[in-house]
Amino acid sequence: MGTVPPHPFDPLTPEEISRASKVARPHFGGQQPNFRVVTLLEPSKKQMIQYLENEHQNKPIEETPVRYARIEVVVQGNRGENQLFELIVDLDSDKVVQKQHHQGKHSYIDSDYMQAVEKACLADENVQAEIKTLNLPPEATVVVEAWAYATDGTNDMTERLTMCWFYMRLLESADANYYAYPLDVCAEVSESLQVVKIYRLPTKPSERINQEKKEYDRRKMHPAETSEYHPDLRPSPRRTTKPYQVVQPDGPSFQIEGNHVQWEKWSFRVGFNYREGLTLHDIRYDERSLFYRLSLSEMFVPYGDPRAPYPRKAAFDLGNDGAGINANNLQLGCDCLGTIKYFDAYHNTPDGEPMKMPNVVCCHEQDDGILWKHTNFRTKNPVVARSRILVLQTIITVSNYEYIFTWHFGQDASIFYEIRATGILSTVPTDMEVNEKIPYGTVVAPGVLAPYHQHLFSLRIDPAIDGFSNSLVIEESAALPIDDPSVHNPFGIGYITKQRIIEEEGGFDLDFNTNRTFKFVNESKINPITGTPVGFKLMPFYSQKLLSHPTSFHAKRSEFGNHAVWVTRHQDGDHFPAGKYTMQSMGGDGLASAIAKRKDAKTAESIRDQDIVIWHTFGSTHNPRIEDWPVMPSEKLTVGLKPVNFFSGNPGLDVAPSTQESNKSVLYVEKGERGDCCKPTL
Amino acid sequence: MGTVPPHPFDPLTPEEISRASKVARPHFGGQQPNFRVVTLLEPSKKQMIQYLENEHQNKPIEETPVRYARIEVVVQGNRGENQLFELIVDLDSDKVVQKQHHQGKHSYIDSDYMQAVEKACLADENVQAEIKTLNLPPEATVVVEAWAYATDGTNDMTERLTMCWFYMRLLESADANYYAYPLDVCAEVSESLQVVKIYRLPTKPSERINQEKKEYDRRKMHPAETSEYHPDLRPSPRRTTKPYQVVQPDGPSFQIEGNHVQWEKWSFRVGFNYREGLTLHDIRYDERSLFYRLSLSEMFVPYGDPRAPYPRKAAFDLGNDGAGINANNLQLGCDCLGTIKYFDAYHNTPDGEPMKMPNVVCCHEQDDGILWKHTNFRTKNPVVARSRILVLQTIITVSNYEYIFTWHFGQDASIFYEIRATGILSTVPTDMEVNEKIPYGTVVAPGVLAPYHQHLFSLRIDPAIDGFSNSLVIEESAALPIDDPSVHNPFGIGYITKQRIIEEEGGFDLDFNTNRTFKFVNESKINPITGTPVGFKLMPFYSQKLLSHPTSFHAKRSEFGNHAVWVTRHQDGDHFPAGKYTMQSMGGDGLASAIAKRKDAKTAESIRDQDIVIWHTFGSTHNPRIEDWPVMPSEKLTVGLKPVNFFSGNPGLDVAPSTQESNKSVLYVEKGERGDCCKPTL
Repeated sequence: MGTVPPHPFDPLTPEEISRASKVARPHFGGQQPNFRVVTLLEPSKKQMIQYLENEHQNKPIEETPVRYARIEVVVQGNRGENQLFELIVDLDSDKVVQKQHHQGKHSYIDSDYMQAVEKACLADENVQAEIKTLNLPPEATVVVEAWAYATDGTNDMTERLTMCWFYMRLLESADANYYAYPLDVCAEVSESLQVVKIYRLPTKPSERINQEKKEYDRRKMHPAETSEYHPDLRPSPRRTTKPYQVVQPDGPSFQIEGNHVQWEKWSFRVGFNYREGLTLHDIRYDERSLFYRLSLSEMFVPYGDPRAPYPRKAAFDLGNDGAGINANNLQLGCDCLGTIKYFDAYHNTPDGEPMKMPNVVCCHEQDDGILWKHTNFRTKNPVVARSRILVLQTIITVSNYEYIFTWHFGQDASIFYEIRATGILSTVPTDMEVNEKIPYGTVVAPGVLAPYHQHLFSLRIDPAIDGFSNSLVIEESAALPIDDPSVHNPFGIGYITKQRIIEEEGGFDLDFNTNRTFKFVNESKINPITGTPVGFKLMPFYSQKLLSHPTSFHAKRSEFGNHAVWVTRHQDGDHFPAGKYTMQSMGGDGLASAIAKRKDAKTAESIRDQDIVIWHTFGSTHNPRIEDWPVMPSEKLTVGLKPVNFFSGNPGLDVAPSTQESNKSVLYVEKGERGDCCKPTL
Repeated sequence: MGTVPPHPFDPLTPEEISRASKVARPHFGGQQPNFRVVTLLEPSKKQMIQYLENEHQNKPIEETPVRYARIEVVVQGNRGENQLFELIVDLDSDKVVQKQHHQGKHSYIDSDYMQAVEKACLADENVQAEIKTLNLPPEATVVVEAWAYATDGTNDMTERLTMCWFYMRLLESADANYYAYPLDVCAEVSESLQVVKIYRLPTKPSERINQEKKEYDRRKMHPAETSEYHPDLRPSPRRTTKPYQVVQPDGPSFQIEGNHVQWEKWSFRVGFNYREGLTLHDIRYDERSLFYRLSLSEMFVPYGDPRAPYPRKAAFDLGNDGAGINANNLQLGCDCLGTIKYFDAYHNTPDGEPMKMPNVVCCHEQDDGILWKHTNFRTKNPVVARSRILVLQTIITVSNYEYIFTWHFGQDASIFYEIRATGILSTVPTDMEVNEKIPYGTVVAPGVLAPYHQHLFSLRIDPAIDGFSNSLVIEESAALPIDDPSVHNPFGIGYITKQRIIEEEGGFDLDFNTNRTFKFVNESKINPITGTPVGFKLMPFYSQKLLSHPTSFHAKRSEFGNHAVWVTRHQDGDHFPAGKYTMQSMGGDGLASAIAKRKDAKTAESIRDQDIVIWHTFGSTHNPRIEDWPVMPSEKLTVGLKPVNFFSGNPGLDVAPSTQESNKSVLYVEKGERGDCCKPTL
């Protein structure tokens, strides 16, 4: 955008990344640091509140917050061990203003390192010897997949340890689905790329690792039709699905300048970072503030198979892997339909230079059926308005899995966050007899077990409902008593709502049986018609909480999984419900611990009519179906945010009624119905 | 369709309606009966199972079930009272084979009668005198809205009693939203069109009817901008939403002959009747049977305001009103986009002659985002398949409210049933002071209260999972214990699923905390790969149950509202979870009573591996928002049905990957980004 200075919410520019690295580089005594992260340190909210007020009132901006870069680097210690440093660089003065050594912590997964691990593992003599004993088919290519080690308490966590899972592919193509051939071998690779352990995986429900095992046939070939998803490796696809195109003759209804999106009374800014991926900032409708920031803040995927070493399979897909760094390069005509705006992002190379990630976010419109309709039954006159939504989408690949993350903005001032889980199930080998049952997985192909697992997401909602001081209200709908003489309920059908304003930080659960509703309200702004505080409500996704035992490392590491709704007082940079450094974390860094620490230290502040943050935990207990194999049809999870007595009426009331003139639908004429042709006619 | 005989599931043809009435007419001693219903009596399932087997195997149909018409007529008794008769006419022999007098029961709402009630009410002298005392503005037109009386135990129910609610409109147009001006008058009209009671409605939270009341100002004019929805009565709509068209250059992917729909491996038949509206029959995927019949079977809308006479506001929108008879005539370019097939239906006139209802169901395709995607992170090759869905939609108007009912069929063999609630809130007058609170409604405009209410739907699912003998299984996901030495769970992270097969009819509740999943399985058909019975699962909509007290008439009349999932043994014609005749019903005719009666009579049969029916109760506790006013943005409620270990893999795996060549998306180019034009370029 030439000379236009970046908005305070804009991610670092390539030039800023380069400059921040340059400023940081000399701080390591001549050692070449491995730049893991060079990202925007978002400005303090206090400063931004003032900034945004001026900006939206078109007042001159008196003070633009300093641009800061947050840098994570890894350097080698004396014993070859990783040392993690975090630096804050002031980009206005090109100075390092803070440098911290995070002793014993690890940066997120380094894909270059993981590739080195795989290579080292496969090159290891003992590994090769073990593979030989497997008696694989001659055409087999062994594939090693390296996973970050999920803490299970049996290893020292000051150095990285990587779990290597083994698969094979029998087709020549590197796009063959090797998850269809999990092998019963496992290796552990050390920080210094040494294979430190090799062992056989359990394959019988009752089997344990390191037991003497009976040989079984690993040469079973699965037909491509049921095991491959890549079109080059499959029979011809169905040809029955005829083309379907979205045409927007006058172009899209949005206007986008830089990262600022305006559409149908909505205004917001698109952000992006290596960890959360897409973030949204300063979300307003019709000039009124709704949310300061919206983002997916964490995600935990623990597997439920109790047999060692499977308790080490538990991924923090944001904290360990990164939703930004793993974002797909979206393709025109594939990932969306219609007129598409793509956003690029910049990450950094290990040298600290900018690395372009093209098309990581797409923005487009969709028709969403009927927004509202009414037919006056006396006059028979119908009025129908169609719903147009604006979609912002990003898709990530984390090894085998894909997640499609989309924000939907509605003309009725609603926001929906939809996650689609797709991709390939993580598999393990099994050699059960026919009729043998395994209670923690589904056999999706002969010899292939797809273990049960959970997906737990944390959606971070930073509300700014008509201002920055908000309260969390829990409302329930309750039947009136019939036996209380002071209550008027003569026919036993009365019910009322009861509100409770939350005063302290904490975690809460969902209960549809009481119609429990979580609202974010501004107690100082009373709706002049309803007489109640203006607000928005959460439309949660109902799902099971974390199943791991509270004493387990899974539970200690992913505290947010223990409640569906959390509320905390806002703190700058507090974006991490499972802690900032999740890689091989030991627990105690999550939401519950942070709240408890503040309470213990008597630093907990009231959260009523304050700057608060809401964290919604939701997800799925994913006990695979065979229908999820070999590539999973999207499983949708949806969370909504809707105004409740915020406006003075339906915000979509002024959407123009639908007309055939504009929509140009086509009447389908059945064979023989009119004329003798089944082609559509106008 | 000329000489093609109707399929057994096809609704009655106009000729059959006419003929059935002719056969029935002489059975009332020369009295001219009021034909309320002339509809298909669906053939017995036992016969149809044989029929469908032959049909799908292309065998000759040896025995086509007799076509029966079910007729409901009302004739006047000696004292002028309504007498309801039900007749079954054999259309093969043109004979009445059954005639029943349903003493004390009422047929569904007669709109001609309701119009007569409104007219009589307005013409009544005392009503006019009461209106005069209201001191309405001179331009006011009083509108009476007649509602079926919801039993509250204070009147004899052998005759109809109609509640007349009063509104006014201040604009000349008959399309003006009179719900914006509820008046505090109420009248009761008798079967013989006599106004039997007139009284004032309570307007203060603590007020009771028949109390002396303070006068208040009914002359407050609401601005059209916040009270009118009809475009003729509003300021110009927003002009920012640019056209969005769906183009299907090769036509739709479906083939429809008569009522038989085929699309993407799906096959089913469309049915329609005055009460349930759209019904689906013989639903198959890839030639395998999934469901025998799917339909919305009932709906109850009780209001929660305890003040008399509001306990009389409680509507059975299917049993009393009829989802078929109230179906909208859908319009091209308004109610759907793309290439649309419309289905007409035939109801009957009071004379028993056919009455065409055009375009009551539409059928079209929609793009539904991404069906599945995977990127091999080693080769970077993405494969993405877009999801196409087939939508069958019907929309009903029940006085003030609209419901949009749609079935979505997916290429992954999933079915979703979506309800959108829209239309106008039912309102009552209120004259609260500023700061006065009312705990059972929302003030949506000065003087206008939108009372809390519930919507409870009953979705009837008649499964035929790979055959007609199915079982209901309840599955839960449970953590393994950590303190049981016989259980291997060394790291405390293990969990398993537990199944329970239901042996007896009954009602069950949802519990997302245990990931409780309701499956319909065929225990005789074992999936050869997973080793488990083939099945489908219900993806329920989580919602609060009926809030009315169990002893109330609301609860007794709508028994299905007390549990989220019911299972019964299949019985022909058992389509009525709140009883067949809901109009002024007294209770005891619903699901719970039917099950209890069979149990008491020891006629209850096992439901395991039998012909079973599942009823899913769901809905919303609708505590209105001001954003629902004056016309409500669609509130979506979605229920899903998905295969679980039914197939041998993802049923949508053979969907062709998406290509820009077919989808023809357009790249949005930002102003100044490339060239100086913001128009989309190809």
